[in-house]
Parts: sequence; structure tokens; C-alpha cells
Amino acid sequence: MKKILFSSLALALAAGAHAQQSNVTVYGTIDAGFAKVTDKTTAIAKGDSNRLGVRGVEDLGGGLKAVFQMEMRFEPDTGTVESGSRPLFQGQTRVGLQGDFGQIRIGRGVTAYLDAKDAFDPWNGVSSTAGFKGDLQVAGYNAQPLDPAGSSNDRFNNGLWYNSPTVQGFQFSAAIASKESNGGAAIVGRGTAAAPQFPANSQASALPFSLAAGWKSGDFSALLGYERNAIQTKVWGLHLGWQALPELKLTANYAKQDQNHSKALNSVTTAWVLGANYSVGAGKILFGYGQKKPDGAVSTKQTSLGYHHSLSKRTYVYVEASNKAAATSVRFFGAGVNHKF
Amino acid sequence: MKKILFSSLALALAAGAHAQQSNVTVYGTIDAGFAKVTDKTTAIAKGDSNRLGVRGVEDLGGGLKAVFQMEMRFEPDTGTVESGSRPLFQGQTRVGLQGDFGQIRIGRGVTAYLDAKDAFDPWNGVSSTAGFKGDLQVAGYNAQPLDPAGSSNDRFNNGLWYNSPTVQGFQFSAAIASKESNGGAAIVGRGTAAAPQFPANSQASALPFSLAAGWKSGDFSALLGYERNAIQTKVWGLHLGWQALPELKLTANYAKQDQNHSKALNSVTTAWVLGANYSVGAGKILFGYGQKKPDGAVSTKQTSLGYHHSLSKRTYVYVEASNKAAATSVRFFGAGVNHKF
Amino acid sequence: MKKILFSSLALALAAGAHAQQSNVTVYGTIDAGFAKVTDKTTAIAKGDSNRLGVRGVEDLGGGLKAVFQMEMRFEPDTGTVESGSRPLFQGQTRVGLQGDFGQIRIGRGVTAYLDAKDAFDPWNGVSSTAGFKGDLQVAGYNAQPLDPAGSSNDRFNNGLWYNSPTVQGFQFSAAIASKESNGGAAIVGRGTAAAPQFPANSQASALPFSLAAGWKSGDFSALLGYERNAIQTKVWGLHLGWQALPELKLTANYAKQDQNHSKALNSVTTAWVLGANYSVGAGKILFGYGQKKPDGAVSTKQTSLGYHHSLSKRTYVYVEASNKAAATSVRFFGAGVNHKF
Repeated sequence: MKKILFSSLALALAAGAHAQQSNVTVYGTIDAGFAKVTDKTTAIAKGDSNRLGVRGVEDLGGGLKAVFQMEMRFEPDTGTVESGSRPLFQGQTRVGLQGDFGQIRIGRGVTAYLDAKDAFDPWNGVSSTAGFKGDLQVAGYNAQPLDPAGSSNDRFNNGLWYNSPTVQGFQFSAAIASKESNGGAAIVGRGTAAAPQFPANSQASALPFSLAAGWKSGDFSALLGYERNAIQTKVWGLHLGWQALPELKLTANYAKQDQNHSKALNSVTTAWVLGANYSVGAGKILFGYGQKKPDGAVSTKQTSLGYHHSLSKRTYVYVEASNKAAATSVRFFGAGVNHKF
Repeated sequence: MKKILFSSLALALAAGAHAQQSNVTVYGTIDAGFAKVTDKTTAIAKGDSNRLGVRGVEDLGGGLKAVFQMEMRFEPDTGTVESGSRPLFQGQTRVGLQGDFGQIRIGRGVTAYLDAKDAFDPWNGVSSTAGFKGDLQVAGYNAQPLDPAGSSNDRFNNGLWYNSPTVQGFQFSAAIASKESNGGAAIVGRGTAAAPQFPANSQASALPFSLAAGWKSGDFSALLGYERNAIQTKVWGLHLGWQALPELKLTANYAKQDQNHSKALNSVTTAWVLGANYSVGAGKILFGYGQKKPDGAVSTKQTSLGYHHSLSKRTYVYVEASNKAAATSVRFFGAGVNHKF
Repeated sequence: MKKILFSSLALALAAGAHAQQSNVTVYGTIDAGFAKVTDKTTAIAKGDSNRLGVRGVEDLGGGLKAVFQMEMRFEPDTGTVESGSRPLFQGQTRVGLQGDFGQIRIGRGVTAYLDAKDAFDPWNGVSSTAGFKGDLQVAGYNAQPLDPAGSSNDRFNNGLWYNSPTVQGFQFSAAIASKESNGGAAIVGRGTAAAPQFPANSQASALPFSLAAGWKSGDFSALLGYERNAIQTKVWGLHLGWQALPELKLTANYAKQDQNHSKALNSVTTAWVLGANYSVGAGKILFGYGQKKPDGAVSTKQTSLGYHHSLSKRTYVYVEASNKAAATSVRFFGAGVNHKF
């Protein structure tokens, strides 16, 4: 058949077809196993976020590259989108350019600081119940408090990201997002139930932003981060890493959250987390201990121990256990398989 | 640009990028055509489930492999997810390992018995209106009665699957799922409208499981299956196949469903289905006849005739017709194209 | 592990795996940037539709091919499906055959006329705020008025498409869709609020169809289109293109919409749009001016100016501005990056 003459869509698609496609990658993670939590029956569960994404790099010449990434999240036990209600591309949707100047991206994704800190997490950023990333490591800070309940806590919608190149071991990242209205329930804050500080659909009080500065020299690495969300909660943190032996990595994390803008009393929370990863052949032992102390309230203390056994660079099986103690204690035991493609 | 230092996500993705990716396959089925059903106007419809999936196998060495599969379902006439309301990955989301011991998978998918019986279906498991798989072949059994209305009937959420290797023509499969709460409407069962046996959000009464044992010798094959769902409905069936001629396959299916746990009267349904597939060059004639007899109620009798003409190994066009007679009769005529990729 | 014996799904998938897969393409567009609209704060926005799709062609021999395409749409700033509520595969889901006779497809997609006219659009069919495609170029016509609010305006659900081959520069396309019920709110039309002409869930009054005839000779091209939707609104248009210089394309568009069937007064709307695209090296200057005049109501007048700078065949950066004046004026300024893969 001869080609169709007057179809802009056909033309657009044809253009895509002719273009070089080799740098587009379909990737993902599927992680499923068993979990037993105090007072609940053993259930099928995930140990890590489950992902299906597409990403690509196009070489534009002169050192310039176009980059994009879009990533779905889903529940492996029921086949729904993450939590049954999150956006289709919960993981991220970003497009941008990179070159000698670094990388600029626009869209939705994890904030600069919250993304960078995962490298110092005892669980390496895996969002297991045994992990520390969402709660202790950043003192329970939430980057998107105005999003509907059930949203993850570490992303910016409507954001702009900059990552500097690495110069003499130093690298800097920043993200800023546009002011959004409160898409979730009213946040009482320093208001009253009748007149909440952030009513539903009200405007955010500030432009959220996130800053991260990292440094690596020999066996040592360090990260300093600062972030402010749309209701002016602030968090800063210092994260240190030491590759003490070829098979032993030690990390230490400190973070302080200030909710003074939306909380009249006891608005400061501090937290610290220590981690160790010890490799034994194809295995890796993970250990973490941390405390979170909200000013004037009871502490949360978590101890976690895990063993990840690599079957390949892309696949590992795991067992892990943790005890999280606050007013009550929650014990967790999990086992499963994690496969990346 | 130099690589970004402190981004666990970037590191994780980079790891994926370096890994061997050649065994990841994007696959799917798109099937659309016309359907005319008694008392309805001719409409655009599908003759088979429409799928878009990703699956992969990773060789871990020593005969061990990691396997995964995730499959979306959609409506080709409107572009929505299947039925407009099903989970994004309605088809399945499973990850597991296979080796000499067989295959173990975790996640969501079709149950062991309901999956295996499709090989004996006159329509080979294609979910056409002319087919027998969901209703007659298993006496109308529903594997997930606690899921919201509109869910498909043959899957386990939160499941664990085992498939044995094939030894001397014999193969065994089993699946078990964790107890889930009733996510749909209340099921009166042996209760009353005021006090239903399975209220909404109530706990299932049993762990659902599914067993299938198959045997193949020369031109003969047989399958024996048994399954029990979360409200203790049981079904068992015997399925026989005979490749009578190189171009002729004959099948016979018998199934019995027992709803005694949730139905006080007439709780047993029996069903049988006979099928024939006859190949003529690129064409295949499909014929099926079956009856379903709920104890103490009117029978359902279905006769179906179809012709599938292969344009390639991946593409066929079809015409099919059926008459399903119970209290009233429904005649169906369909034609369309089915393409796999 | 030996293969699993009695799994129709495994067999179906294995068949897919053995089949030739090289013609399946994962493609997409990701476009994100900044937008400033009169009286609104600067926000992250898109300049074009964001897409992730899969399409393929299978050579069936003898000049016959099987074709399919399925396309998701999404919002790059929040990661949701398009508008947060559209079907998963909002772009299209179609399957069909093509050969010497042309191309026949079934499913969901842009109508024949509304697809073809984009080649004459000053913005080449890009759905930017600065563009003309959805409003002025077709006098504000809506191809699917019975779909829920928020649906796009240029598609048929449940449709059948035919595209002729191009013979001596002439090509013809047609689409027809089955009668659907009103899935959106009641449309008062020529009825009353109490007894609307098209109540919710009422039947459409007509089979919608769409016709497009295009002609191309040397530097000149022309398109004549006619379309009628399910509530019998009609639109027809004439679209002319002239490649005046190798670097200069000029277009002229005229359209007339007749809503007489559902509107008692002032039911006719006429519109015209003039466009120019001027290439300068890797850059392209886009200019458009148009007017839409609903019979007996105030005119809409739009002037748009844009500059698209190609970084490659697949990637461009853009700045664009427009002024749309009716009872009030809306000024728009946008900038961003568009990447196709």
C-alpha cells in the first residue's frame, strides 16, 4: 500500500519509526514474597516497589543528550496500580537535557534530597517494612503533604530538577516545584477544625524546593540535604558513608524536621540511623538501627536485620526481620524474590 | 556528563541498564471485530481478551532461571482497562524461579486448574461469547467470589503457584492464595439479607487452593482438576483429549461444582462439553456442544461453530456463531481479526 | 525444566515468543515545559500530548500486512492518565489489515477527517494552547459529544476505519462508529432541562461517520472533509496547502459546523485559519491566525507565534505565544522540550 497522504499522526509516527530507537529501554522490578506482621496473618507482599518503565537517552551531538524516563508502579499481589489509587506513572515522568553543564529535567519525580539520601540507607533505598528510608531517615518528613492521602511522601509534581556534573568528587542537585493547591483533605495545622490552616483546594503557602550536596573521596562519602515543602515544613540532614573494608559499608544518618509553620507545639523531630552492609560471597547482610524523637512525644526505635542472596546481578532472594517500637511494637518478618529487568 | 554520585535510584537503574536485557519481551494480543447478539444492535466487540504484557526469563546458571510476567488487559473498542474497572495488570503479575524442581511463582494469576483446562476447551481458551471456558467447562465456578463484581472468575490474588516438571508425560500444578476479606458486596449465602454469611469486608472462610494433574501419552491427554475458593465452593473436573487424526482433535470435559457451604438448596451443578477442532490448510473449524445442569434448575445448552483462518502464525481472521439456550435463548454471531505480537 | 504440558496460556505465549517480533515498536512522546496564561501563575505544563504506545506491522505475504497500534496518554507533570480521568489507551487501540486495497482497522481512534486535517494546521496538529486544531480549525466541532465531560473531542469509540491507497495523488478515508448511549450528562439540546433531548444513558440519534478526501500535486495539497456525530452535528471543511518555497509552507483552512439538530437558534458556526511555517536551519517559525464566528454570537480571534528549534530529528525545544480574544482575551506564553522515541 502506498503511504497515507494527509495524516499528521501517521507522519509523526513515521518520523518516530525512522528515528534511531536503540537507546529506548523497557525496564522494571518485580518483587514479591511473604510478610508476617504482628497481629496479622501471613500474607503475600512486596519487599520493594514494583516497577515497569521506559527510559531513553538520545545523543544530540556536541556532548548534549536528551533524556526521559516514565515509570509505572504496581502491586504484584493484586495487579493494581500502586496502593490501588496512585497515578499510573507513580514512579516518575521526566524529560530533559544533559551535557557538560549537568542535567535539567521537567515533570514529576523524587525530590533532589530524598533521592540522594537512599545511597546512605541501611536498606539502600528499598522500601521494605524493614527499611528506614521513608520514616526514620528523614524524621518522617513528607514532601507532598497537599496530595491526596495515600500518595507517596517523597515526590514533587510539577517540578524542575537540576543535577550538576561531578567535579572533584563533589556533586550538587536541586529541585523546585510550582505552588499547587491542596488536593487532599483540609490540614488543620495552626488553624482550627472549623477554619483549617490549609483548607481543601486552598493554595500552598510556598514554592517547595529541595537541595542536596554530595561529596566522595576515596572510601568516604557525605551528603548534606535541605528541603522545604508546600506548607513550609523543613527538613535537613547529614549522611555519612564509609567503605571500611571492601566487603563492609558503614553509614550514619542524622535528620531534623521543623514543622513550626503548621504545628504550634512540639514541632521539631530529630532522627538518626546507623547502617551496615556486609558482603559474604553472593550474600549481603544488612543491619540498621535508628531512633526518631518527636519533640515532647514518645520515641520510635527500629532495629532491622536482613540477608539478600544474589542469584545474579539482577535477581536476589531475601529474608528480613525488624522490630519497630514506639507506644506499641510491630515485629515484621519477610522473605521473597526481587528481579530486575 | 559525569555520572550522578548520590542517587540510589540512578544507581539501581544503571544496574538494570548494564544487565543483560535480551530476554525481556513486550507481547500482546489485539482482537477486534463485530458482534451481533439476540435483541442487540451489531456492535464493535472483541473475540478474545486484549493484552499488552512484558515477560522475561533470566538464566541464573546451573539450570536455574528467574521468570516474571506482567500483563495488562484492555478493551479495544474504547481504550479502557478491561471492563473499564479491572486492575491495570488484570492478566497477571508474577515472579518466580524455575529449575529441575519445576517452577514456583508468587503474585496474581489464573489458578492452576482453571489455567490448565483451557487446553481441552473447544475454543482453546479464547474467551469469545462462542467459547465454553468460563461457564460450561467448569460448571460456572468462580475462583474469586469475594472480589468486586466485574472481576474475572478464574484468578487468585495473593497467590503462590507451583508447576512440576513433566515426568514420563505426567505434570502436576498447584496454587494457594492467602485469605482475603470480601472486597465486593455482601454474599447472603446461608445467611439472611440482614445477616449475610459473608458481609462486605468480612474475612474469607478458607484458604483457596487449586490442583491440576495432567497426563499425555501419544495421541491421548487427560487432566484432573480440583479447586476450592475462599467461600468453600468446590469444583472438580475431568478433561480428555484425543488427537484422532493429524488434522482432528477431539475433547471431552466433565465438571461438578459444589456450593453446599454457601447454598442450602440445589447446591450442586454438573456440566459437560464436547469439542472438535478440524484443520483444513490454513483454516481451522471449531465445534463445541455442552450442557450445564444446576441441581433443581433449568439446564443451559450451548452449541458453537467457528472458523479461524490463519494469515500467519500470529494473525487470524474468524467467523463464529453460537446458540446458548436456557430459560431464554441467546444467539451470537461474530467476526473479526486476532493479532498476536 | 521441561515445558509445562497443560497450560493454554503458556502455549499461547510460547507461540508469541517463537513468532517474529522485530516489527513491534515501543514509541512515545514526552513534552514538558512552562506555561503562563493570563491571570494564572506560571506552571509546569505540556506543549503536546504525552504518549507511550506500542505499534507493529506483520508482513503476511502477497502484499498483505497486519497492523496494530495501542497508545497511552499521560500528564507529564503529575504522572496520571491524560486529564486524570481518560481511558488508559486514550490515544488509540486499533487492529487491522492493509494491502493493495488500502487499510481497514477496527477499534478506537481519531476520526478520518479530524486526523487528516492536522497536516494543514499551523501547529501541525500539536495540541498546544497556541495551536488551532481542536477549536478554530473545525469550528469547535466535537466528534464524541456523548462521552463523559473531559473526553477529547476528535475520536470515535467502536469504530471502523478505511484508508484508500494513494492513486495519482488522491487519497480517501472514511470511518463509521456504532451507535452509543450517552455516557455523559444529559444534553438539553432542543429539549428542556426537565426533558432533555439526549438524557443520560439515552441512545444516540444517528450512526456517526467521517469522510476525508485529499489531493496532492506538486507543491499544492487540498483536503475536503465531512463528518457527522452521534447527535447529528455536522461539520465540513476545506483545507489548502502550498509549499511556496522549500522553506515556506502556507496553509488555509475553512470549516462550517451545523448544530441544527440539537440547537434551535444560531446553530451555525464558521471558522477560518491561515498558517505559515518557515524553516531557518534547525529552526522553524510557526505563525497562525484564525477566526471562529458562531452565528449570532461574538467571534473568537486567535493569533499565534512559535519557534521550534530541532536538536535532532526526535527532539526540539520551543517557545510559543498566543492571544485568543473573544469576550475576554487570554494570553499564553509557553516554552519547553519535546522528545519522541
